[in-house]
Amino acid sequence: MSGRYAQELIDAGFAVEVADAPLLHDGLNIADLAHVLMLREDGVIPDVAARRLLGVLLEATRTPAEDFGYDPTNGEMYNCRERRFAAQIGREAGWLHAGRPRREAVRIAMRLRLRRDAVALIDAATGFAEAAGELAGDHAETFMADQTYLQHAQPSTFGHYVLSFVPPVLREIDRLTTHLDWVNRSPAGAGGVNGSMLTRDRVGMAGVLGFDGVIEHTRDAMWQTDGLIGLLSSATGLVTLLSKLAEDLEIWSSSEFGYVSLADRHTRTSVLMPQKRNPYALTMVRGEAGILIGRLTGMLTVSRTPSARSDNLIFAYGEVPRALDMATRATRLMAGVVGGLDVHAERMQEVLESGFSQAADLAEYVMTQHGVDYRTAYELVGACVQRAADAGLRGIDITGAMLDAEAQRLTGATLGLTGTDLAEVLDPRSIVRTRVVQGGAAPEVVRTMAKESIGVAEAAAAAAAQRLAAFTAAEAEVVARADGLVRP
Amino acid sequence: MSGRYAQELIDAGFAVEVADAPLLHDGLNIADLAHVLMLREDGVIPDVAARRLLGVLLEATRTPAEDFGYDPTNGEMYNCRERRFAAQIGREAGWLHAGRPRREAVRIAMRLRLRRDAVALIDAATGFAEAAGELAGDHAETFMADQTYLQHAQPSTFGHYVLSFVPPVLREIDRLTTHLDWVNRSPAGAGGVNGSMLTRDRVGMAGVLGFDGVIEHTRDAMWQTDGLIGLLSSATGLVTLLSKLAEDLEIWSSSEFGYVSLADRHTRTSVLMPQKRNPYALTMVRGEAGILIGRLTGMLTVSRTPSARSDNLIFAYGEVPRALDMATRATRLMAGVVGGLDVHAERMQEVLESGFSQAADLAEYVMTQHGVDYRTAYELVGACVQRAADAGLRGIDITGAMLDAEAQRLTGATLGLTGTDLAEVLDPRSIVRTRVVQGGAAPEVVRTMAKESIGVAEAAAAAAAQRLAAFTAAEAEVVARADGLVRP
Amino acid sequence: MSGRYAQELIDAGFAVEVADAPLLHDGLNIADLAHVLMLREDGVIPDVAARRLLGVLLEATRTPAEDFGYDPTNGEMYNCRERRFAAQIGREAGWLHAGRPRREAVRIAMRLRLRRDAVALIDAATGFAEAAGELAGDHAETFMADQTYLQHAQPSTFGHYVLSFVPPVLREIDRLTTHLDWVNRSPAGAGGVNGSMLTRDRVGMAGVLGFDGVIEHTRDAMWQTDGLIGLLSSATGLVTLLSKLAEDLEIWSSSEFGYVSLADRHTRTSVLMPQKRNPYALTMVRGEAGILIGRLTGMLTVSRTPSARSDNLIFAYGEVPRALDMATRATRLMAGVVGGLDVHAERMQEVLESGFSQAADLAEYVMTQHGVDYRTAYELVGACVQRAADAGLRGIDITGAMLDAEAQRLTGATLGLTGTDLAEVLDPRSIVRTRVVQGGAAPEVVRTMAKESIGVAEAAAAAAAQRLAAFTAAEAEVVARADGLVRP
Amino acid sequence: MSGRYAQELIDAGFAVEVADAPLLHDGLNIADLAHVLMLREDGVIPDVAARRLLGVLLEATRTPAEDFGYDPTNGEMYNCRERRFAAQIGREAGWLHAGRPRREAVRIAMRLRLRRDAVALIDAATGFAEAAGELAGDHAETFMADQTYLQHAQPSTFGHYVLSFVPPVLREIDRLTTHLDWVNRSPAGAGGVNGSMLTRDRVGMAGVLGFDGVIEHTRDAMWQTDGLIGLLSSATGLVTLLSKLAEDLEIWSSSEFGYVSLADRHTRTSVLMPQKRNPYALTMVRGEAGILIGRLTGMLTVSRTPSARSDNLIFAYGEVPRALDMATRATRLMAGVVGGLDVHAERMQEVLESGFSQAADLAEYVMTQHGVDYRTAYELVGACVQRAADAGLRGIDITGAMLDAEAQRLTGATLGLTGTDLAEVLDPRSIVRTRVVQGGAAPEVVRTMAKESIGVAEAAAAAAAQRLAAFTAAEAEVVARADGLVRP
Repeated sequence: MSGRYAQELIDAGFAVEVADAPLLHDGLNIADLAHVLMLREDGVIPDVAARRLLGVLLEATRTPAEDFGYDPTNGEMYNCRERRFAAQIGREAGWLHAGRPRREAVRIAMRLRLRRDAVALIDAATGFAEAAGELAGDHAETFMADQTYLQHAQPSTFGHYVLSFVPPVLREIDRLTTHLDWVNRSPAGAGGVNGSMLTRDRVGMAGVLGFDGVIEHTRDAMWQTDGLIGLLSSATGLVTLLSKLAEDLEIWSSSEFGYVSLADRHTRTSVLMPQKRNPYALTMVRGEAGILIGRLTGMLTVSRTPSARSDNLIFAYGEVPRALDMATRATRLMAGVVGGLDVHAERMQEVLESGFSQAADLAEYVMTQHGVDYRTAYELVGACVQRAADAGLRGIDITGAMLDAEAQRLTGATLGLTGTDLAEVLDPRSIVRTRVVQGGAAPEVVRTMAKESIGVAEAAAAAAAQRLAAFTAAEAEVVARADGLVRP
Repeated sequence: MSGRYAQELIDAGFAVEVADAPLLHDGLNIADLAHVLMLREDGVIPDVAARRLLGVLLEATRTPAEDFGYDPTNGEMYNCRERRFAAQIGREAGWLHAGRPRREAVRIAMRLRLRRDAVALIDAATGFAEAAGELAGDHAETFMADQTYLQHAQPSTFGHYVLSFVPPVLREIDRLTTHLDWVNRSPAGAGGVNGSMLTRDRVGMAGVLGFDGVIEHTRDAMWQTDGLIGLLSSATGLVTLLSKLAEDLEIWSSSEFGYVSLADRHTRTSVLMPQKRNPYALTMVRGEAGILIGRLTGMLTVSRTPSARSDNLIFAYGEVPRALDMATRATRLMAGVVGGLDVHAERMQEVLESGFSQAADLAEYVMTQHGVDYRTAYELVGACVQRAADAGLRGIDITGAMLDAEAQRLTGATLGLTGTDLAEVLDPRSIVRTRVVQGGAAPEVVRTMAKESIGVAEAAAAAAAQRLAAFTAAEAEVVARADGLVRP
Repeated sequence: MSGRYAQELIDAGFAVEVADAPLLHDGLNIADLAHVLMLREDGVIPDVAARRLLGVLLEATRTPAEDFGYDPTNGEMYNCRERRFAAQIGREAGWLHAGRPRREAVRIAMRLRLRRDAVALIDAATGFAEAAGELAGDHAETFMADQTYLQHAQPSTFGHYVLSFVPPVLREIDRLTTHLDWVNRSPAGAGGVNGSMLTRDRVGMAGVLGFDGVIEHTRDAMWQTDGLIGLLSSATGLVTLLSKLAEDLEIWSSSEFGYVSLADRHTRTSVLMPQKRNPYALTMVRGEAGILIGRLTGMLTVSRTPSARSDNLIFAYGEVPRALDMATRATRLMAGVVGGLDVHAERMQEVLESGFSQAADLAEYVMTQHGVDYRTAYELVGACVQRAADAGLRGIDITGAMLDAEAQRLTGATLGLTGTDLAEVLDPRSIVRTRVVQGGAAPEVVRTMAKESIGVAEAAAAAAAQRLAAFTAAEAEVVARADGLVRP
Repeated sequence: MSGRYAQELIDAGFAVEVADAPLLHDGLNIADLAHVLMLREDGVIPDVAARRLLGVLLEATRTPAEDFGYDPTNGEMYNCRERRFAAQIGREAGWLHAGRPRREAVRIAMRLRLRRDAVALIDAATGFAEAAGELAGDHAETFMADQTYLQHAQPSTFGHYVLSFVPPVLREIDRLTTHLDWVNRSPAGAGGVNGSMLTRDRVGMAGVLGFDGVIEHTRDAMWQTDGLIGLLSSATGLVTLLSKLAEDLEIWSSSEFGYVSLADRHTRTSVLMPQKRNPYALTMVRGEAGILIGRLTGMLTVSRTPSARSDNLIFAYGEVPRALDMATRATRLMAGVVGGLDVHAERMQEVLESGFSQAADLAEYVMTQHGVDYRTAYELVGACVQRAADAGLRGIDITGAMLDAEAQRLTGATLGLTGTDLAEVLDPRSIVRTRVVQGGAAPEVVRTMAKESIGVAEAAAAAAAQRLAAFTAAEAEVVARADGLVRP
């Protein structure tokens, strides 16, 4: 066979495909076993040949991909398998291909792999949602200035902040579940493209493989990639979302901010500067978001090709599972980071009090309590804040007298605020407690929502675990049936 | 105000934002009207001020964006509106900002716009699914060779081919509908980020604006972009899918293939070479798929930023609606192309008969009918095909005698096929008719599936139309209520 | 003509192209004038017809694109022009197309446009390099802690920091100049693809149009896009680089860091919180980097198409100039930001002194001065730093006695450092002054390199200005020659 | 050490980095050897320690990466090396870090790797240019219809067609060479960021490592990535260009076109349908173009991060060399494909003659020879072509009489063409021979240009080989010097 293929074809072709063998090996074994079992039952493959084939396939299930003999000089994975089986049992190995071209086998294997990858990512996402929900509940009264443009804007809590990452993660879990529904459907029986003559029961075959049903249209089953793009989009979207949190935390970990510290186990330190803790975990997650954006782009670009061209799927075999795996790792890491985070509540409080994040509330107070029109209230408070800042005062130091003086200047009359106790109005903590509107920052609102979110995440985790168990059971049953026939 | 901002900031900042004013103008008007109506009802804005504000806002709804005075030297859209209203009614214009920062107004406006864009894309996708379903049904007996690598593979029909694009489009409609559910939720009452003190009824406000409900967490409502990425992913995935069909058709429109012709109204011709029909429609759709992949990448890249940074959303205002609009146009164009396509059935049949696409079925016949093991059957048929090709024969010209001669050569014995009538086995049309498995290429299977698909698409179109009507009604009601107050 | 094209084709096709008319209008006018002038000289177009054609073309040069009558119901730009000219002068307008198809005209126009866009971007980049060089020189002694992971690492200066953005900008200018060399070559005379029969002197035509020469191979000239991708890559790379600086400055603008403030003219403030300065300029630049990454991706994806397919270039007409323009604006904005930046040297110095960035130098001191092996020196200093940090001391507070105590603990013997004056070793400023190695942080090194960089940037700016002047002169000459013939 | 790092950090962090160890291992060994040699010469590292260190480093150079003990539970590559060396020689291993942080070592190693990758890609590109140039020269008289929209446009040759891919490849080689100039500069002596105190001679160190010079600014040297983006852009652009050729050839390999066949060694065939040759090579190249577009996007997205954040470069270590390697493989494959291509000249000629690609030339003939204005000539020929096509005639069948009849109809008068021999005017081969303009399709023009291009490519290949030899020599010299000290 040496010399059949040009070396440059082996290097740029088969070697690229064979590098994905470890990802598809298990799935190919299960797909082949199930195929032989079905054709034997249907009387297409003679019993003796079927048993011998099942024997070598069972051996394959016990052989790690690295030791199997996938070798690009022989072609891609499927060719390598053909060769090995033929070397083991001769002509009878040929029955494996009855009624099912290479393409169909690899498509099934890919889905068997991806359904596990999708469940793993869903599970990782639930882990993050639970950890972030817990952290939010714990810090429902850890007051801090919410920021825009990294500038203090309004009083809030760290709990409200971190909880804002949970609903989008729960939504992404929903999307991933939809994509899993697409993945976990059977292309078996497509006969390459138009429907196999030998497969009589596509639904039964789907059930044997643990699929939820069939992809009805056989050419759709073989060639369309919309669900792959969906999966990659969701995985990329999820990690991109987490990268926002990662970058926030990286900034807040600086000594200048000092808002949070990562657990030691998520940082790198140096012997030399032991007080320095490099938030390595956050850097990796941010980088992985970028890489994943590229992976999605690459798959989309590859998909912009005519239909039924092999590039459309050859590259998906490796790119999609690897990207999902990277997303799963990054998500588990952020779950760990959130779970181990040290939040410096006093520092946040100190910074909050040093600023003027109460200005908007003060203006609304002046407006609603003192019959001042809105623009005047704004300008009055603004001028007062400016004067206070210039004098080195903080927002909580503003007094009714100061407001009156400003009102006098602006409108020619005071508001009668001199002597009024503004402590409640100016205290950022009191302000936060007024945010009882749905989804607002008030501690009890955050606590309730955090608890509910954790519940949703736990339910999703349980459902994912159940699906995984079902996959494992179906695959084990295929092996067991083959085993029963081979070793009577 | 001139001189307040550096020219380079106006050019690279406000001018970029103001270029999106035509996209957000209507939504801003509705958002502002609803806000003033609510605050007036709640007694926050004095009645007189409210009526005057409603007056200028109603005038704004009657003024096209181009004539409104959006001018980047004044800042972004919201600043421009402030200026105009203040110029019209003075200080009372300031009440517009009570309890609601700029950010919240624009977020609402964006969603009011996007829900219409999403419905338009869904509608366009249903149009394609219906047109493609019709075409599939019409060509359930237009036989052709299905291809891989653009090489003839197996006998099929053009109907089965074109139908393979319908299920993924229907799935994408499902995904788009999910994203629409995200879009059509209300961020109102978030008070910028932590929950407004002045908004008491977020659910009621959502209903007034025609939203399906609220985005619960207020910071999620203001800042998260997962649904935007979802929308763009689906839109991009849809057009990428259609680009596969477009490129297939562009190739098949060549004189060498001669499989299909586009309707004149979808081509460009030249005066000089009037027989030449450039499939311009297909080129545009393919290019638009590429552009959209870039738009999605750009939004994802922009989203890889810390949380609560404005770049995260400023660029979404223009990029997302424009991308959805491009996707809608491309989809409508492909629906038109499919609807007007001229399919050359005789040419397809002629090409089909000239090849060897029946080889796989012949091998299965030899195997199942003559007790030959599978590999032998394959090799025998392969050798026979090679010999036939060398002799200038077609697949349908193969005879039992030829197979017997080949069997003799390979195995030393004939199969007793000489004299057997293989016409049925070799006729590609007969082969296709055996593909009655679920989703297979048999004409009745294709016809039934096409019909069902059209039904699903029609139902989706009706649902989309209903949603659009509801949006329009809610928005009209806001205007009517304002009108009622202003013009008593 | 209404009815010739389907509305969906107009919407997804011609309207998309015609939206780019303002970008190509001037170039088309020049290309057409030059073409007619040449064919008249060569005797191909009769003199009378040529004069009449030149007349309407000159009128076109005086008509803004918006008023010209580009209307997608008539087709793309070139069709619209044909129609207008035919309406004006009848059949003689047809001479315009002699020996030159539409494709060639638009390719020339695109390059006439892009050469100006490329020069503008180069000019903007030189402006940034000069501004950053100036700032670096001014702050060669503004000491600060250089950071990794946003954690203090080693003592440096703000000048050294900001100067690190200049060499890559100068390199990008070199790359842009190379791409400009590609852009500014003439495709004229390609006759669509294989070489026009009527164009005898491609070099002469190139000179008339102000091109540096011809693109030799005519099919290369018509279809290849490598230089466009080069241009976009450089523009995107440049703004991505600037986005690093932008994000650094956005973080350093926070009140927690307090390292820098943007000039008021580059920020947005609110009436309400007048002390808050939102660094709007930086947000826009960061977002524009993301958008440009998507634009490059889109063009690359579009370019992954068969050769000589129109999508390959139709989309380039609008995408490339718009992307270059966005890059130019973003670059000019960063030049402005850098030029107006307020650097808070005292705050930087205070933060620098509060940390332990001298630890590495202290370890090297111990090693080289006290014969201690390297690992021991590191561990000793590390332990000492830890102890100092725990005690609330700063790096500059470390004493010889403390080191001796640590050495005693670790090695059982002191180093004899007690009483040694470590002020010089520990002073971050002294440390920086030792960095006299090529490109190091020592003030004089930074000042010299800054000065040299400014010189390089100025030279590049002058060269760019010269090229622009040459383009303008060549184009004016074309108009003048036409004018001379028409108005004798 | 187990337990120091969280498992999720190992999985998403160190394991990701360590997967790149095989790419950096050789470079790290050379960088470490050179560093120790220099510090020994400068008297910083004591002689005995230096010799012991060199001993273990030399052993490392003889140990493949897989056997070296890179293990993510110990951290990233550098940590793993530290551990191994300390285990081997104890404390003295610590001298390795004198004056040079981890970052600097890995940056050097990356460049040592990338310069080889860049040369390999340049070499592959020259191989393609030579092969394509040869093919062009061989087919300068293989006539075919050049196509736009895959529709016949004008007569040309296959030689002219394939030659159009050579100039952009030569330009990309120029760009790659510029990027190589960036890569092959030394960051050594940067001391992490601000300039090492211990490195006195950055230029000397650069020379030892075989670099062309230093990257002057030390922070630029450590952190900027513009050249990496340049390299990836060029590699991606190159393969995207080749994907155009690949897709053209894939279409032309169809039986419907039948223009070309790939050599067997670049295709996949099936036992069953032996006459079917799947152009697997082309599919892989097209897919790889798409994947590379994603890789570039990913790196750009990762680069859109603040400065001096590690994600900026950690991901470059693996992504850039792997992408360059993929580009090299794809390019070598296309060189092979082009070199082995079977061009079916008769089929091309037959198709060419069956169409109307001579229409434009015929119109120009009518115009120039018969004083007819251009538009009239066009319309006349167009009408004639239409009538011929309807009658089943070919372009070469058009007669003067037919043109006269059409002229009579259109203008009321004949042109006196009846009886004129139009054979020369209508023969596509004659038409091509008139394209003698620079870069045109005339055979001698193509042959000359092909020859020149081959010369340019050969010179570039020789220059690349020379650079590679210099790298190898410099690295071998480092090893030899170390060897000389260790084994006296």
